[in-house]
This record gives sequence, C-alpha cells and structure tokens, in this order.
Amino acid sequence: MVAKMKIAILGAGNVGGALGRLWAAKGHSVTFATPNPKSEKVANLLRTIAGTTAATNREAAASADVVALCVPWTAVQEAVQSCGGLAGKILIDATNPLASDLSGLVIGTTTSAAEQIAGWAQGAKVVKAFNTIGAMDFGNARFGSQRADGFYCGDDPAAKAVVKQLVDDIDMEPVDVGPLRNARLLEPLAMLWIDLAVNQRQGTDHGFKLLRR
Amino acid sequence: MVAKMKIAILGAGNVGGALGRLWAAKGHSVTFATPNPKSEKVANLLRTIAGTTAATNREAAASADVVALCVPWTAVQEAVQSCGGLAGKILIDATNPLASDLSGLVIGTTTSAAEQIAGWAQGAKVVKAFNTIGAMDFGNARFGSQRADGFYCGDDPAAKAVVKQLVDDIDMEPVDVGPLRNARLLEPLAMLWIDLAVNQRQGTDHGFKLLRR
Repeated sequence: MVAKMKIAILGAGNVGGALGRLWAAKGHSVTFATPNPKSEKVANLLRTIAGTTAATNREAAASADVVALCVPWTAVQEAVQSCGGLAGKILIDATNPLASDLSGLVIGTTTSAAEQIAGWAQGAKVVKAFNTIGAMDFGNARFGSQRADGFYCGDDPAAKAVVKQLVDDIDMEPVDVGPLRNARLLEPLAMLWIDLAVNQRQGTDHGFKLLRR
Repeated sequence: MVAKMKIAILGAGNVGGALGRLWAAKGHSVTFATPNPKSEKVANLLRTIAGTTAATNREAAASADVVALCVPWTAVQEAVQSCGGLAGKILIDATNPLASDLSGLVIGTTTSAAEQIAGWAQGAKVVKAFNTIGAMDFGNARFGSQRADGFYCGDDPAAKAVVKQLVDDIDMEPVDVGPLRNARLLEPLAMLWIDLAVNQRQGTDHGFKLLRR
C-alpha cells in the first residue's frame, strides 16, 4: 500500500476533474493547479469536490509529491515550464498529442507498414490484420470464456467482410477498427504485445481485447 | 457467411504456416507462395498441412482471391513486387515493421508526448498513465466482472509504484507496460480509443484489456 500523496493536478477539465474527484475520495490531498486559482470556474470545482484546494501551477507543484498533467497537448509545454523545476517529482503524463480535429496524433506517428504496402501494391484492397498477437496464439486465442480480438482495418468494405470471416476462422474475435490509416495504431499495438513477450519476458499467453458494455 | 476463398500466403514461417493450417482446416484453398516451391522445407510443410499446395509468388497471387503477406518487414517490398500486379486482390497485411532487435518499429513511430515532456521537465520522474480511456470512464471502468486496464510506463520504479496505486484508486486494473519510451505505444492505443469513440461514433463505453492465462 502506497502512502497518501500530495497531488497537484494541472488542468481542471474532464480528465483532471475526474482524477481529482476520485483521488480525493481515496484520501489523497488534491490541489488543482491553474493560472487563475481564484476564478469562479475553479471555485465551482472546489465546491463540488470536497477537500480539494487550488493554487497556481508553481505553488501547487512546489508542495506536491505527484504532479498530474491533464491539459490539452498544445498547452503542455507552457504548463510544465510554469511549474518551475520538477526535478525529483513524480510527473504523470495523461496527455495525448491529438490533432485538433481528432484525426490522429500530431507527433510520434507518421505512417505505417500497411500504408507503404498499399503504395507498392497499386490497386490492391489492403487490409491490416493478424498482426497484434503472436502466431502461436492463432487458433489458440481463448482466455477463459473470451476470445482475444483480431483487429483489422482497411478502406474496402467488401475486402473487410472477407477478412472478418478469416479472423473468425482462426477463432479470434473480429473487431473492425476503421480505415487503413489506423494501421498506424495497430502496429504500435502489435509492438506492445511483442515488447511484453520478448523484451519484458512475459511469455506469449496474452492478447488484447476491447471491452464493451 | 463468406464463401470459401482461394488464398495465397506469402511467407511460410510461423505466421503464414499457422494461418495456412487453420484456414485449410476451414475449407479454404491455401497455396504457400514461395520463391522455391519445390524446396524440401516447403515439401515438409505441405506434408504437415493437408490439402495445401505451393507455387511461386507470381503464380500463387495470380490465381488467388486473397493474398496474405506474412514475411518479415525487410522482405515485404520484394515479396509484393514479385507477385506481379495485385490490382483488385484482397491483400492482407499481417506484417509489423520491427527493428531487427525488436526494440521498436522502424517506421511510423518516432517519439511520444511523454518523451518530449521528459525533456521539458528535467529531473522529473515521468510516468505515462491515464491516457488510454476517456475521463468519463474513470471510476466507471468495470465491464461485467472485469476492470479495464490502466496502462502505465516509466523509467523510475518507485514512481511507477505510486502510479500503480493511483490507477487502482480510480478502479482500473494497473498494467505496467515497461519503460517510458513505450508511451510511443500507449499514445496510439489512446488514439484508437478516441477514433472509435469520436470518428466512428461508437460512444465511450469501451476500454482495453490485456487478457492473460
């Protein structure tokens, strides 16, 4: 059990507000760090979440064990720098470098194998699939009562219908994740599977599932 | 139900072999495409998987409805081009552009928000977390009897122990996925969550889980 923490939350939006509410309820000391701690918006937030306080970024960070970054990507650099030094602090990065239209990530991902292949195979109906679990789990992807997901993406609906069946044929759960450019998201997911299996030596008995309700 | 397919598998290794075996068992017509269809290795493969055949890449692709790419990334371009035209074919890309030491992807991922933040926050113990599910699911990440995973990564073990508790405190399942550079893998995973929610209008009642057995 970890001790109760002094936590500064940068960003009092949906993410920071939800974390602050839940962490305060668990007994952590939560301060919302904001450029304007006396604003009406902040006062409203504090009224709805018992036991929390507000301070400037610099004040909040200085007295915190843990600083949680919950601001939009475009505001992250300024938020970090406005804290003064963060050396020795635990800095939780809950951000994603999202494009403003939510079409993708603005840093870190640039292309995918699938898109390169589509360039080489002119006219082919490329579908990304079968890349997010090890081959030893093909036909053996049941985990208790669940099947691991076989994610696939592509731009041709008829081709995807065929691949959906081929995924089911190896006893995985077919999950359509959209257009071919989302191979940019499935290839890192595959790398995560591989990293756990190989670099972190956790074996090959794992697979991803998108839970829904 | 999709009709039985004529499938050419490029690459008769672990991935192609496993798919060929499972698809042949489901009644699909499977041909292993290989530069040397009469080799002893290929003959051995055909003996162990009833009903499959072998042909050159060009022959196999020409007569197939579906071509499945199952070769190492370094061999993909040549494999595609050796098929002759693939226009109109369903081309399944099961590859991942892996570095030869499995340390990461050689195309598509270059950095992450978390790594940039670590550069700005000198000395801070950066941990990536809370980015792979929507804030509306914080404290509400149960799906039947399961909790969605709260993935985190970082380079400081003590900081990660704290974050593990903070993940549990919002009622998600803490899953350590390794060093901070694996934020390159968690940020695309977040983008997948967001893409399904926003761009594909599937709502926000979903979350990822790493199944294990």
